[in-house]
Amino acid sequence: MNNSSNFPKKSSRRNFLRNAGLGTAAVAGTPFLSGRVAADLDPRKITKFFSSGDVILFQGDSITDAGREKKNQLANNARSFGTGYANLAASWLLEELAGKNLTIYNRGISGNKVYQLAERWEPDCLELKPNVLSILIGVNDYWHFRSGKYEGTPEIYEADFRNLLIRTKEELPDVKLVICQPFILTGTSAVDETWLKPFSAYPEIAAILAKEFNAVWVPFQEAFHKAIEIAPATYWAGDGVHPSMAGAQLMAEAWLKALT
Amino acid sequence: MNNSSNFPKKSSRRNFLRNAGLGTAAVAGTPFLSGRVAADLDPRKITKFFSSGDVILFQGDSITDAGREKKNQLANNARSFGTGYANLAASWLLEELAGKNLTIYNRGISGNKVYQLAERWEPDCLELKPNVLSILIGVNDYWHFRSGKYEGTPEIYEADFRNLLIRTKEELPDVKLVICQPFILTGTSAVDETWLKPFSAYPEIAAILAKEFNAVWVPFQEAFHKAIEIAPATYWAGDGVHPSMAGAQLMAEAWLKALT
Repeated sequence: MNNSSNFPKKSSRRNFLRNAGLGTAAVAGTPFLSGRVAADLDPRKITKFFSSGDVILFQGDSITDAGREKKNQLANNARSFGTGYANLAASWLLEELAGKNLTIYNRGISGNKVYQLAERWEPDCLELKPNVLSILIGVNDYWHFRSGKYEGTPEIYEADFRNLLIRTKEELPDVKLVICQPFILTGTSAVDETWLKPFSAYPEIAAILAKEFNAVWVPFQEAFHKAIEIAPATYWAGDGVHPSMAGAQLMAEAWLKALT
Repeated sequence: MNNSSNFPKKSSRRNFLRNAGLGTAAVAGTPFLSGRVAADLDPRKITKFFSSGDVILFQGDSITDAGREKKNQLANNARSFGTGYANLAASWLLEELAGKNLTIYNRGISGNKVYQLAERWEPDCLELKPNVLSILIGVNDYWHFRSGKYEGTPEIYEADFRNLLIRTKEELPDVKLVICQPFILTGTSAVDETWLKPFSAYPEIAAILAKEFNAVWVPFQEAFHKAIEIAPATYWAGDGVHPSMAGAQLMAEAWLKALT
């Protein structure tokens, strides 16, 4: 896999601020062909990432959880996937790569911060023995600190996340890691511009760890950055954190494209 | 819109039987390129079907309902869409056509037969004033008859469905109709080959009405017919009626492609 082009050129706080939902006035760029956000997915390219019989696991917080039913937690089951990007990406994979006999789980849980992933990592990751593991975590690590519910700092996020990845690679040395960029959209019901500077540390750390662990990097913030040229931030995520149907589809496509 | 190629050449019961899940042994055809079921969607073609500000409504039974939350029944809301083909198709539209300001509803209800659509048509269709109305109905009209819970016949299905469409066109003369082919997959937990002959009347009637009302026709049975060359029928719909994630994605893509 070649994902170097998806990485930020450097961990520049200025670039992050420019890309984090400031709207078209702050954005330099070319207009999009026919008002579309996404290029077409090419299943022929994505198929190369997966081997027959692969077990794929989506991990994260409420954005991944997306209202999934937690009683049975079945693989390849829509109710157990909820209504977010994980369902949309997994449905696409299960149809397009129907011959590959994939097993796909969603184990996102609303409100989780990285240390809470660690607490449930044995049953909710290691025991599932994924070949492909996707992690989207970080927005609550900042949000719950901001709202006074959590004492965490960027340094704690980095240490906890690195330890989780070390532990994962020790148990599952051949796992393909997919690390997703935490994102926010300003000008929405929960997120204003005072979030930008303090939040920016979290996606920067996620990018550093993605490089350190040779993970595929999924640039969600950049995808939303393009999207707000077409429709306002609230169209993609009403509160700036939880994506709409359009936002979830944007994420699913960004996730799938990152694998090519 | 040109949908003539999607219509069955004639309402041939023999063709239907050949296409209704009999497996590869009974199927003449060419192998699929690289094991894929679906051709790529082209948003540039699909965009032509929709006008800015269009209201789109998905109507039907449990296949459309797909566990949607019924308290608020919001437009463009994932929980109000459930986890079926309507969510997948609507999410794709809301992202790809983000500039079109679409309003999309799901009002499918589990267990519905065509007369039950008629009973709730005022609040659940006409009052929403859709510009595009998609209907998938028919499998319960047969299944509930078969299980002794309903006295309906193909003739009642045809009369009720035609009256519903007449009423719709009187109230909404400019609505674009999308009529979906009811389908079954044999060799599954609920459906065996004894369904094929008696069930075949229902998709035949749906096709006749689609032509009569100049509707777009969505050939779901043909889509599944291709799909079972790649993976067994239970992969696409465990009970032969309710699609899996892969089956729902297949339906969403078939639905979207029918609009081109």
